[in-house]
Order: sequence, then C-alpha cells, then structure tokens
Amino acid sequence: MTSRQLFENIRRKKSFLCVGLDSDINLIPGFLLDEEDPVFEFNKRIVDATAPFAVAYKPNVAFYESRGAAGWASLEKTAQYIRSKYPDLFLIADAKRGDIGNTSMMYAKAFFEGSSFDAVTVAPYMGEDSVGPFLSYEGRWVILLALTSNKGADDFQYHNDGGIRLFERVLLRSRQWGNINNMMYVVGATRAEMLKGIRKIIPDHFLLIPGVGAQGGSLEEVVEHGMNSRCGLLVNSSRGIIFADRTASFDRLAAEKAEELQQQMESHLDARGLLE
Amino acid sequence: MTSRQLFENIRRKKSFLCVGLDSDINLIPGFLLDEEDPVFEFNKRIVDATAPFAVAYKPNVAFYESRGAAGWASLEKTAQYIRSKYPDLFLIADAKRGDIGNTSMMYAKAFFEGSSFDAVTVAPYMGEDSVGPFLSYEGRWVILLALTSNKGADDFQYHNDGGIRLFERVLLRSRQWGNINNMMYVVGATRAEMLKGIRKIIPDHFLLIPGVGAQGGSLEEVVEHGMNSRCGLLVNSSRGIIFADRTASFDRLAAEKAEELQQQMESHLDARGLLE
Repeated sequence: MTSRQLFENIRRKKSFLCVGLDSDINLIPGFLLDEEDPVFEFNKRIVDATAPFAVAYKPNVAFYESRGAAGWASLEKTAQYIRSKYPDLFLIADAKRGDIGNTSMMYAKAFFEGSSFDAVTVAPYMGEDSVGPFLSYEGRWVILLALTSNKGADDFQYHNDGGIRLFERVLLRSRQWGNINNMMYVVGATRAEMLKGIRKIIPDHFLLIPGVGAQGGSLEEVVEHGMNSRCGLLVNSSRGIIFADRTASFDRLAAEKAEELQQQMESHLDARGLLE
Repeated sequence: MTSRQLFENIRRKKSFLCVGLDSDINLIPGFLLDEEDPVFEFNKRIVDATAPFAVAYKPNVAFYESRGAAGWASLEKTAQYIRSKYPDLFLIADAKRGDIGNTSMMYAKAFFEGSSFDAVTVAPYMGEDSVGPFLSYEGRWVILLALTSNKGADDFQYHNDGGIRLFERVLLRSRQWGNINNMMYVVGATRAEMLKGIRKIIPDHFLLIPGVGAQGGSLEEVVEHGMNSRCGLLVNSSRGIIFADRTASFDRLAAEKAEELQQQMESHLDARGLLE
C-alpha cells in the first residue's frame, strides 16, 4: 500500500483509526474460551464490528507470542482473516523487532511472507543494517520507534548530542533509508507537544500514534501538532476499544467506542478540509 | 542461575563458549528434512555433540519465528530438550525484545514461563519500564544491548551527550535496574577495543560477546580487555560451529569446532589463574 492509497482509505472512511489487537486471552470475554481458538474468534468479532470505523489494525505480537506456538497460530489466522476479508485495511505487526542484517531478514520473512502484514514496528538501536532488510520488501513498511509513549522514553530518547536528541537523530538518519511510501514513525500521544518539532524534520511521513486513551494522550493535541496535508496520522486505540465490555455484546460496545473516535476524527479531517 | 553458579560451570567445563542456534532450515543438512521436525532434530544433535565444550546455548528466535507456529514449536522443543537433559546449561533466547511495561511482561511470560529460558536479550531504546518486567522473574536474566557488533551500531550507539555516549548511558542507567545476578550486556567482539572503557563502568557484570568468527572479532582481544576475576564473558559462536559441515557427520564437525574454541578458552582461563 502506498502513502496515497492509505490517505484515500482515510478519506473514504473519514477515519485515521488503528485498532490495537492486544488480545490478552485472560481479558477476553469468558464465554469465548469454549471456542477452538478463543483469541482468533475474539479478533474476528472485533474486526467485523469495528472495520467500518478503522483503516488499520495492529496486533501486538507479544500477546500472541506469550502463548507460544498456539499464540502464533492465532496471530497468523487473524492476519489471514483481515487480509482476505478486508484487503484495504493496513495491517501492522507491532513487534518492535531489530537485529543484525541476516537476522532482521528472518523477522521480515516472518511478518511479510509467513503472514502478509503491511508493516512491522522496528526498534532503531542497532541502526541501518537492522532496518534495511524490512525495506527490501516492495510495498511493505517499517514503522520505526522514534519517541515512545512510556515513561522510560526519558531514559535514552532525549540523549542530546550537540542539540540533536536521540529521537531526532533517528528521524534525521532513517529518513534517508526509506521514503514516505515505506517508512512511518512511532510517536507517543503522551509526547504530543514534541510533534511540532518532529514535523519540521519529517513533514510528509505518516506517524503511528499510540497512547490515546488508556495511556492518557489527547487526540486534539495530536491532530493540532501532527496532522499534515495528507492526514499523516494513524492513531491507535487498543484497550479502550477491544476491552470496552466483556459481555456477549462486547463487539457492539467495541464498535461504539470505535465509532466515537471515528466521529472525532471525521470532524478533525473536515475542519482541515481534507474530506473535500 | 546466579553469576557464581555460571562461573562455577565455566571452571568445570574450562569454557565460556555459547553456541548460537541460528538454525536456518535452508542451511541444515538436507537429509534432516525427512525428519518430522528437522530443525529440532538438527538442534538436538548439535547440542548433544557440543555440550561437553559449551556452557550456554542461544537460539536466535528470528530463525524460528520466520517459520511461524511450526518454528515456535521447534524453539519450544529445543528449549525443553536442553533444559531437561542438560540442566546446567545457560539458555538464552536471543530475541531483542522491548516494549511498554504490560507488553514486555507478555514477552517475559513467553520466554520464562512458556519456555524456560534463563535469559532474554532486550533492546534498551524504550528505557527502564520496558526492561523491568523481565527482571521481575527470580533467577532469570536480562541481556541488554549495549554496543552491538554490526555496522549500524555506529548510527546511534555513539551518540554523545556531554562526553557520555549512548551505549555508556545504557550501561550507567541500567546497572541500577538490576544486579550482577540478573543482568548482562551484549558487546560485540568487533568492538573489543571498547571493552576497556566498558569494564570501568561495569567491572563485575557478565558480557555476552557475539561476533567472534563469521563477523571477524578476535577472541584474544575480547579476553584481554573484557575478562574479569570471575571470567565475566560468554563468547558466542553460531555459524562457525553449527554449519561447519553439511554431511551426515555435521555434528562431529560441530563438536570439533566447539572443542577448538574451548581449548583456546581453557588456555586463557588458565593463564589468568581462573582454573585453580
């Protein structure tokens, strides 16, 4: 998927919502545990209910990996289901991978061949040759960690070399590795005040923004400082949508929460004239 | 396993060798492909042949993950096999994980509960709360990336804030998060000249050293600058051992390569009086 196609999907759905599938088997509605693959069944119902309001889905790989081979099967089935039933959805493996070249190539293979994700989140610490293998897949994306939403972001990401903080160096260097059609960046919604400076370095790239909702970030601030002329934002919500309810109508409640966000997003897109 | 127990194993085996199980299904001897689980069968024979010469094994998770759920099953079986047959071996999941707290907890669960690894390699970019969950498991270890062996290490790891480079800040901060019994650091053998400075910051921690062999690092230099009074080193070799040969006697050749390294290691330990 290109950046332009993603923007077209955003215009069509009037939404830049990414739904995070942090599908913890201990938190899904109890009645699903009788299913053969409870996590896949949960995801299927969440996706079917929320797809009208979202342009992207982001399984958090840790929640699958914690269940070993069975969890990987749930992840693969989820990716296949979304890919085949909703080919326009942008599918992100939130995996935070990154290793030396031959090893990153294996991770790329896992997510781009074994499963057909559009994008993988990647940690930048090991530099260019740890990121490059993911970029060798035509039409697929790297979503590189820049400034994360958690408290620990303060430990290293602001490390300041001659006025250039580490997250800025990550942006400055890595924008040379790919382009706006195969790289985005993670910037936490809890760091929305930093978006203005970030947009000076990467005005045209898409950003994946976690941290709205449970982690306390504000959609308004993210839009104010981060939106560009082609939207340029995917805003993720996980727990606030998928665990809004644990009864038999959990999917209906999830859809309501997704629609609430979509409505807010629509008014932001409209106010900026991006729906015309 | 404590740091002292690990040192005792090193003294007993006269070796600080870690064998990297980068078990690429495309590189293992062809006749194994008839087995039900070729990668597990390969690992089993490699471990049985090389265990007399090694104190640690390090499956590189990417090579398993690239095969999806089937690959995860091979990884789990390999960990179980080593854990049950060779309880004294130090078992490392080379996974380079790291995410916000609740997600890192899921990764910790994957490797410390789902499989019973002693240690997981972790990327530091997201800071303390991304590392802490791994340290909440008594007797298990975090192996934090400090200075890696690849070319891309130059991109960010030397980012210099007032004389403190990023990898040094990682050492300085993280040594407060754990202790010598639950944290080690990755320092690439190709950066051996940096070990002297690193030892000033963390004199007593164990280091996991990749990059000897295929990547060009020198065992002599690593020992000269990195060994401490309780050895403090695990030196990894992967391809040089496990893919030394692709015939029916691949495991015998692997054992020969492992023994060569063990002999060199023994003489280094002996020269430093650590075997007395």
